[in-house]
Amino acid sequence: MSSHTPAYDALTRTYRQIHHFSHLQSIVGWDTAVNMPPSGNEARAAAMGEMAALLHRLRTDPALGEHLTQAQQEALSAEQLANLREIRRDWAMSNSLPERLVEQRSLVTARCEHAWRTQRPANDWAGFLPNLKAVLAVVREEAHLLSQRSGLAPYDALMDLYEPGMRSSTVEKVFGEVRQWLPGLIQQVMAQQAHQAKVLPQGPFPVAAQKALCEQVMHLLQFDFDAGRLDVSAHPFSGGVPEDVRMTTRFKEDDFLQSLMATIHETGHGRYEQNLPREILGQPVAWARSMALHESQSLAFEMQLGRHAGFVGLLAPLVAKALGPQPAFEPGNLHRLITRVKPGLIRVDADEVTYPAHVILRFEIERALISGEAEAEDIPALWDAQMQALLGLDTRGDFRNGPMQDVHWPEGMFGYFPCYSLGAMYAAQWFAAIRRTHPDLDARIARGDLSLVFDWLRENIWLQGSRWTTDELALRASGETLNPVYFRRHLEARYLP
Amino acid sequence: MSSHTPAYDALTRTYRQIHHFSHLQSIVGWDTAVNMPPSGNEARAAAMGEMAALLHRLRTDPALGEHLTQAQQEALSAEQLANLREIRRDWAMSNSLPERLVEQRSLVTARCEHAWRTQRPANDWAGFLPNLKAVLAVVREEAHLLSQRSGLAPYDALMDLYEPGMRSSTVEKVFGEVRQWLPGLIQQVMAQQAHQAKVLPQGPFPVAAQKALCEQVMHLLQFDFDAGRLDVSAHPFSGGVPEDVRMTTRFKEDDFLQSLMATIHETGHGRYEQNLPREILGQPVAWARSMALHESQSLAFEMQLGRHAGFVGLLAPLVAKALGPQPAFEPGNLHRLITRVKPGLIRVDADEVTYPAHVILRFEIERALISGEAEAEDIPALWDAQMQALLGLDTRGDFRNGPMQDVHWPEGMFGYFPCYSLGAMYAAQWFAAIRRTHPDLDARIARGDLSLVFDWLRENIWLQGSRWTTDELALRASGETLNPVYFRRHLEARYLP
Repeated sequence: MSSHTPAYDALTRTYRQIHHFSHLQSIVGWDTAVNMPPSGNEARAAAMGEMAALLHRLRTDPALGEHLTQAQQEALSAEQLANLREIRRDWAMSNSLPERLVEQRSLVTARCEHAWRTQRPANDWAGFLPNLKAVLAVVREEAHLLSQRSGLAPYDALMDLYEPGMRSSTVEKVFGEVRQWLPGLIQQVMAQQAHQAKVLPQGPFPVAAQKALCEQVMHLLQFDFDAGRLDVSAHPFSGGVPEDVRMTTRFKEDDFLQSLMATIHETGHGRYEQNLPREILGQPVAWARSMALHESQSLAFEMQLGRHAGFVGLLAPLVAKALGPQPAFEPGNLHRLITRVKPGLIRVDADEVTYPAHVILRFEIERALISGEAEAEDIPALWDAQMQALLGLDTRGDFRNGPMQDVHWPEGMFGYFPCYSLGAMYAAQWFAAIRRTHPDLDARIARGDLSLVFDWLRENIWLQGSRWTTDELALRASGETLNPVYFRRHLEARYLP
Repeated sequence: MSSHTPAYDALTRTYRQIHHFSHLQSIVGWDTAVNMPPSGNEARAAAMGEMAALLHRLRTDPALGEHLTQAQQEALSAEQLANLREIRRDWAMSNSLPERLVEQRSLVTARCEHAWRTQRPANDWAGFLPNLKAVLAVVREEAHLLSQRSGLAPYDALMDLYEPGMRSSTVEKVFGEVRQWLPGLIQQVMAQQAHQAKVLPQGPFPVAAQKALCEQVMHLLQFDFDAGRLDVSAHPFSGGVPEDVRMTTRFKEDDFLQSLMATIHETGHGRYEQNLPREILGQPVAWARSMALHESQSLAFEMQLGRHAGFVGLLAPLVAKALGPQPAFEPGNLHRLITRVKPGLIRVDADEVTYPAHVILRFEIERALISGEAEAEDIPALWDAQMQALLGLDTRGDFRNGPMQDVHWPEGMFGYFPCYSLGAMYAAQWFAAIRRTHPDLDARIARGDLSLVFDWLRENIWLQGSRWTTDELALRASGETLNPVYFRRHLEARYLP
């Protein structure tokens, strides 16, 4: 068999090698966030920089370009052609960037992220700024080089790394509409909720009990613990590899809902990874499609499911069992707590309705930073202005809960944030599609039958890997490409019943 | 500067790269033992095999051979010459082995070790045997190829990987003498201890309290927690990198002394790594000298210090504080417990006096396996016979506490075991040397002043890295090369007072 497609086979061999090295990179990256003591950082950064350079060399080997040309002439299956398309995309991105820049990016982001861990709790913007400026300089150069090769605008070229095909013109249009109706919706919902009676949970909630609760909810969500685990890090994330997914969360003794909802979010990421097509794992066509689709899974779990009245009915007894019964854990009350809408400072703790405001703000600041209209020094003022305009909050001087709250910028992930709100929109679109063919969806969830949701996601998203472009996948799954109307309808249905 | 030694500089660049990749390999290896869920194993083994192959390619790059020849003509400092010697040694070993074998070794040992984790508790020798045979086949081929290149006998060639320069003729002679006096000494000590009154500790001892105790004792031993950590694994080990030492232990609720003494042992390894010469880290001359010297550190901690009456006096209040006071924790009683001599099945739990018997047994079985005089199927019978002869114990049918107890064979580490007893002998030699110049050593330890011991070890062993051969290092440190008489004297002084 393989003798007929020598060029394609050579490409798959290289990508299998890249897959193995990425495995090590991913596990060590997790270790850096979860386990590494402070004095380990310089050596770790150097080792990770070396690996980034190696992976870059593998991806820019001139032989790959020849094989790509030759493979186009070979008799390939539809799946192999899709793999070839994804390999070409990966190859083109890598060849836009010199090894020096890749290594430098790895070093400056490792340094910035590591220092950020202590600078953030200390509200130390002055200490953070020079590191962030170094990161920004590298990312701007990266955006410029990617832009030169692809012909995209620099910010679009960055966004394309995370959500292939997505352009800021589209995001602008979609977010522009959201800006129209969101502030009004927030006001309406808050006015309506002001009359709701709510019993607040009485802490403290011991960390061990919270962790046990999170693990039980992961079981409910059918996370495979033989192929993954839950740990603690400063910023929750889902890492590792499909065969060994490393989810993290963080615990606060006075608020169990934060870690619980963050865990539900990361479980969506984790199940996507755990259910990618196994037989071709290691090839780009088996990678998760994109980050907006990834967030559509985390937000399908955290928002569509996690804040669903029926699902909260399943959560309530688990919460009571893990933390001890109290009036706040009555299902109706717990649902009111979980769906409470209140403008706040922290994106990851934001409710479903105010969340898009956090993303719009970051999108606008990022674009200005990449285009050169703004410098890192300008971030606090831009942040304060947008938080005031979008959520009516005064954030002056609070860097910790302001521009220092996320790990994305220290890690150089400019262009990622839009994926969260695009993901929320896709998630609403998936649930609308399921509900069309299964009007009993809500009743099923309420009685603990989650198989419909998971089967649909597995068939339509997880097992598809990168077989299709995002648009094709959305079309096949739901009958249309991204349509933000479902998101608005979902919010109105849930929050203005 | 560097322009005058281009060949040497090229060598150090390659070894810096090897150092960085080894960092990733080491951290992921630790993760495999400590964190990895079962379904992660196949992908992990493949990734680690890929890394082993890469490291082997770097070490066998033909350019290295040329640079080694050229560098000999360059004007190098004494330290650089020592580095060159160590690079040549590493290069010669690597060039004895084809990449195929290195990759295969990585795969079969990963498979054997992973399955061993569940086979050992199940006493499943039949399940373990085929995996072990696969490991043995690879190790025999490795020994044969190393032997061809070095001219050493196959088993000596394996031993040379761990303890450069050590030959089985020397080990035979040393161990042959030990066999002469050890059984008699064990009998004498046991007869004397039979009259000692001992109060046994009353468990259970919660794991969290034991872990806190271990960490306190690590602080007492001046382990740097900013550059390392303590975790749990099936088999205690010390891994990671000098800047981030990953120690592991395991806990049993009914026996806190096992984990405590194992932790003291691993702390010796950890401090050696943490105190290797920093300014040249990454170069072979900065690596730990050898595994017998490494074990001389772990056993200096666990045996020389850990079972020292004065040191146990420091431990006692920490034990009482962590686990709650009880009569067994009175310093004199605790010391009697820690120095109790009793033939047992498990090497890592063995007392100081019976320990060499465990090593002699393994040395003799390993030599027979590598020479082909014995096959893996013969191990249980050989094991039973030696345990009967050396310690008077019947071990038939107990594979779990017999030949399956150690991780070394599953990991293909044949030739390593002698290092433990050689290390015990070096450790006795180091303490004899310290006592010669500082007759107040025991009084100092008793009053909690451990600086004399640590300063001596740091100066004479840790900071020397691989600057000297083992013989040279021993000579510089203690005035003579390996002299087992100090070990016998030490045992007689401590156990037949």
